[in-house]
Amino acid sequence: MLSHPLTGVIPPLVTPLLDADELDVDGLEKLIEHVLAGGVHGLFLLGTTGEGPSLSFRLQQEVIQESTRIIRRRVPVMVGISHSSFAESLRLAEHAASCNADAVVLAPPYYFPAGQPELLEYLEDLTPRLPLPMFLYNMPSMTKIHIEVDTLRRAADIPGIGGFKDSSGNMVRFHEFLQVMRDRPDFSILMGPEELLAEAVIFGGHGGVSGGANLFPRLFVDLYEAARDLNMPRVKQLQEHLFNVRKLYGLGKYTSTFIKGVKCALNLKGICSDVMAEPFKAFRQPEREKVAQVLSAVER
Amino acid sequence: MLSHPLTGVIPPLVTPLLDADELDVDGLEKLIEHVLAGGVHGLFLLGTTGEGPSLSFRLQQEVIQESTRIIRRRVPVMVGISHSSFAESLRLAEHAASCNADAVVLAPPYYFPAGQPELLEYLEDLTPRLPLPMFLYNMPSMTKIHIEVDTLRRAADIPGIGGFKDSSGNMVRFHEFLQVMRDRPDFSILMGPEELLAEAVIFGGHGGVSGGANLFPRLFVDLYEAARDLNMPRVKQLQEHLFNVRKLYGLGKYTSTFIKGVKCALNLKGICSDVMAEPFKAFRQPEREKVAQVLSAVER
Amino acid sequence: MLSHPLTGVIPPLVTPLLDADELDVDGLEKLIEHVLAGGVHGLFLLGTTGEGPSLSFRLQQEVIQESTRIIRRRVPVMVGISHSSFAESLRLAEHAASCNADAVVLAPPYYFPAGQPELLEYLEDLTPRLPLPMFLYNMPSMTKIHIEVDTLRRAADIPGIGGFKDSSGNMVRFHEFLQVMRDRPDFSILMGPEELLAEAVIFGGHGGVSGGANLFPRLFVDLYEAARDLNMPRVKQLQEHLFNVRKLYGLGKYTSTFIKGVKCALNLKGICSDVMAEPFKAFRQPEREKVAQVLSAVER
Amino acid sequence: MLSHPLTGVIPPLVTPLLDADELDVDGLEKLIEHVLAGGVHGLFLLGTTGEGPSLSFRLQQEVIQESTRIIRRRVPVMVGISHSSFAESLRLAEHAASCNADAVVLAPPYYFPAGQPELLEYLEDLTPRLPLPMFLYNMPSMTKIHIEVDTLRRAADIPGIGGFKDSSGNMVRFHEFLQVMRDRPDFSILMGPEELLAEAVIFGGHGGVSGGANLFPRLFVDLYEAARDLNMPRVKQLQEHLFNVRKLYGLGKYTSTFIKGVKCALNLKGICSDVMAEPFKAFRQPEREKVAQVLSAVER
Repeated sequence: MLSHPLTGVIPPLVTPLLDADELDVDGLEKLIEHVLAGGVHGLFLLGTTGEGPSLSFRLQQEVIQESTRIIRRRVPVMVGISHSSFAESLRLAEHAASCNADAVVLAPPYYFPAGQPELLEYLEDLTPRLPLPMFLYNMPSMTKIHIEVDTLRRAADIPGIGGFKDSSGNMVRFHEFLQVMRDRPDFSILMGPEELLAEAVIFGGHGGVSGGANLFPRLFVDLYEAARDLNMPRVKQLQEHLFNVRKLYGLGKYTSTFIKGVKCALNLKGICSDVMAEPFKAFRQPEREKVAQVLSAVER
Repeated sequence: MLSHPLTGVIPPLVTPLLDADELDVDGLEKLIEHVLAGGVHGLFLLGTTGEGPSLSFRLQQEVIQESTRIIRRRVPVMVGISHSSFAESLRLAEHAASCNADAVVLAPPYYFPAGQPELLEYLEDLTPRLPLPMFLYNMPSMTKIHIEVDTLRRAADIPGIGGFKDSSGNMVRFHEFLQVMRDRPDFSILMGPEELLAEAVIFGGHGGVSGGANLFPRLFVDLYEAARDLNMPRVKQLQEHLFNVRKLYGLGKYTSTFIKGVKCALNLKGICSDVMAEPFKAFRQPEREKVAQVLSAVER
Repeated sequence: MLSHPLTGVIPPLVTPLLDADELDVDGLEKLIEHVLAGGVHGLFLLGTTGEGPSLSFRLQQEVIQESTRIIRRRVPVMVGISHSSFAESLRLAEHAASCNADAVVLAPPYYFPAGQPELLEYLEDLTPRLPLPMFLYNMPSMTKIHIEVDTLRRAADIPGIGGFKDSSGNMVRFHEFLQVMRDRPDFSILMGPEELLAEAVIFGGHGGVSGGANLFPRLFVDLYEAARDLNMPRVKQLQEHLFNVRKLYGLGKYTSTFIKGVKCALNLKGICSDVMAEPFKAFRQPEREKVAQVLSAVER
Repeated sequence: MLSHPLTGVIPPLVTPLLDADELDVDGLEKLIEHVLAGGVHGLFLLGTTGEGPSLSFRLQQEVIQESTRIIRRRVPVMVGISHSSFAESLRLAEHAASCNADAVVLAPPYYFPAGQPELLEYLEDLTPRLPLPMFLYNMPSMTKIHIEVDTLRRAADIPGIGGFKDSSGNMVRFHEFLQVMRDRPDFSILMGPEELLAEAVIFGGHGGVSGGANLFPRLFVDLYEAARDLNMPRVKQLQEHLFNVRKLYGLGKYTSTFIKGVKCALNLKGICSDVMAEPFKAFRQPEREKVAQVLSAVER
């Protein structure tokens, strides 16, 4: 079901929770229908925005099972399997395959930072054993390592790796990735940070894994299409709107503020619970009020 | 079985492996007898040196079960339960308790870096549910967060937290930790980096979790005792020897070189296998020969 | 002579040297004529690419004097006055004014990293005493501090600050700078890294301080104009060429490789000497040969 | 007048100012007499604590001239000549020699971070031209580079380099420096951070450049002597006092809080002005009151 290359907007789905280890199945259903109604081109489960690494293995399995059931193959489903343990990444990939997911997404092991040759060997060991196509995920702020351009170039020759998602926010390097993969039109290069979706697509990237698309899927689909069509006046207009939406993301402190802001806004919109997995907690009242204010300004 | 405070040398045991996901039980037994014969005061399973976060949950359980069986309560056993997921840390702690381990050791969740207040809340949520006393583990190079002095001071008031292991290598902050905990003689403050064991103990620390004690347990026990007794000429003599031993640790590249060096030397000494868990591989021949050279120089 | 806002390509001129403390005046003349012939819109002296902070005060004065003499007001001249000492920055600004330069460029003091409020107070103290309009320069890799969006917003209200040059390479933040300055059409926002020139201009930036324009001024002028005109096919074609040119910049090691590569290529093209100021040295033969190869491939 | 190796407590003198660019000569005299009365073994002018890099060249010259006049060769005088420009470092060294200073202190050029081989070549170029013995200064938080152990080992063979001051705070590396220089009893290894003075001396270091000795010179001289004599009960008692004194250093925000705290306390003790060089300002009333409180608690 996966196109080659995969293109478009693939939101990293937040994981609605009733309690730290209990899935909000109703919320999940509403959320999935909300983003699909916005026209997104795929869904990414258990990513950073989905708090994947914070969830128990049991809950990760449940997220995959329930989400694939709800999605009913309307769009491709990608599943994050990043783990500090090789064997656990493999185990989760097998579960994803058994639920008919379409691909897995893998960041480097995130406890020990591997050197680039070590990382490449690790990918050579793991990829042949994966039951699904794999997208490599560059997330240096969490994994402590940058996937270097030469490492990507070599990794792309391992059968089974279908694409690359770059969440480093380093736009110079993203251009290098694009340049070095020019002869591989089947290989998908996706942008992480939503603020850079438009330029990534303008310069040849295939789409984005935009966290804000949980909230405003249509905005990101429109932005993707305008960029793809090089409709620059439209791109600028949508980009300006996007930078207003972003005010939702910086209302708390610490790394967690983005996910807290998105979940809080989804809760205010009546879509799902805002419970966070440990080590985080939902916004308390003062931040919640600020989210409500920004939301009403944005939606006016 | 735990003393208050826990004192002495507690090696972070390497995990002997026959294959990436298969325990070297014979090697484990020889290794444990080797370090116990050296007079160590406790053992720490599944730490960073033990490649804990790289092992599957199944293998982690086996390590705990086999190690506690072999140790037969001759020394206290501490078990690393650090994980990116709260529920998985809890699950491993329960297994450790069922095997009659004496304590657990917990670093902050290592995917998302929590802010200090978030970390404190996390500890307040987790600690009461743990079936064993917990030692807090500061390991910023892996977890991306420093446990701050004020956070330790507050965490120490949570019932169930019995001590602190600082692997930051920041000696100024270690002194601050010692100063702020002066009124808590029951609370154990342990040094991670073995190069700083002596001064940590001289200035009031309770001992160290010295990786090199896998290889040369007696050296570290002697150093600990000399430091405890403020026998400075002896401390300096042993410290000089330790800095020769350290040449074993820098023979490869990348973060992994320390563990690779220790496992390779243990293998050369006939104690256990040198197989590494992914994403790492054992030293190849060139590095192995250098390890042999340093080893023979050190043991002469 | 300065337009408001200043727009276009303003190369940060390399400083041709005969010896560590001796200007290559002939080389300087050829270099200036070379870049002016390429159609650039201004010149920036004593920036990072110009090794400004490595030069003696005497030599800095000479660079300004000779350059302004050669340029003869054909384009606006900006002069870097960044220094760890307030008084020395001021002294250099006064010399620049006496030579009829058009503006000065100032990065935060680069020994002590100031906090944002400290930086703002420093700007409030310094700017009124400057005899020329000032452009603020964000260069975190050298100064250790990021100029934050809110600091720029406040600094822009200090009379005398005419623009901002962002060399952080952080494109997300660059968009934030653009958004927050939308109501100040007179205030110039310039991009440092040449790889991001095109998208900076596409999204509303005013131009770039592109180091590669020392070598290929026409390429950057063309790229700027294509981006300004939203001529995307042309932008992509020129961008691809630019990424071939960039191969000149990574042929050595360390931070210095960019400047060494540019000076070596200028020397091979017969424009000026490749002597570097301390603590650097010109490329030796092996790197020089690689530069020659890339150059001939690029110019074919 | 310099002993080989230089030993003891050498305070990095703060620079008393009446205005941003005006020396407080009376304050300087009182300060020098205050620290000399405390028994210090040398004085270090224009270091980080002396805000050396923030001062104009003119003011730096005046500081050297007035200080050497006041000191009258009662103790050795070291002068910081760190600069981003080779020629300016040299120029300042020549002034220091003309004032009969005893040595210069040099950190790596602090704008461009040199690679280790570049740094070594720079030292090979500069040192023979210096008119005074040079102490190499490791200050990575400001210069962005760590002087590596192997670089120090090679630098120590350049005639004219007489010692090393390590302000990295990395105690593991300090031990490595001590080990690698064991066969050079004439070469002085000094500790920067005062919190580590005692252990540095216990393990073979020659003394320390302790900022707090501006305020409490006798405390640091006593601590140095107790450590040198391996009088551990005395060391611990003084160390505890030192950690109370340190509360003066963290009362503001940002990197500048240490110097602001010391200058404020000196002002409260009636010794000198607390004016700071740009980009900093003296503590305002709220912080000043906190300094007064800590001071009275410490001096009780």
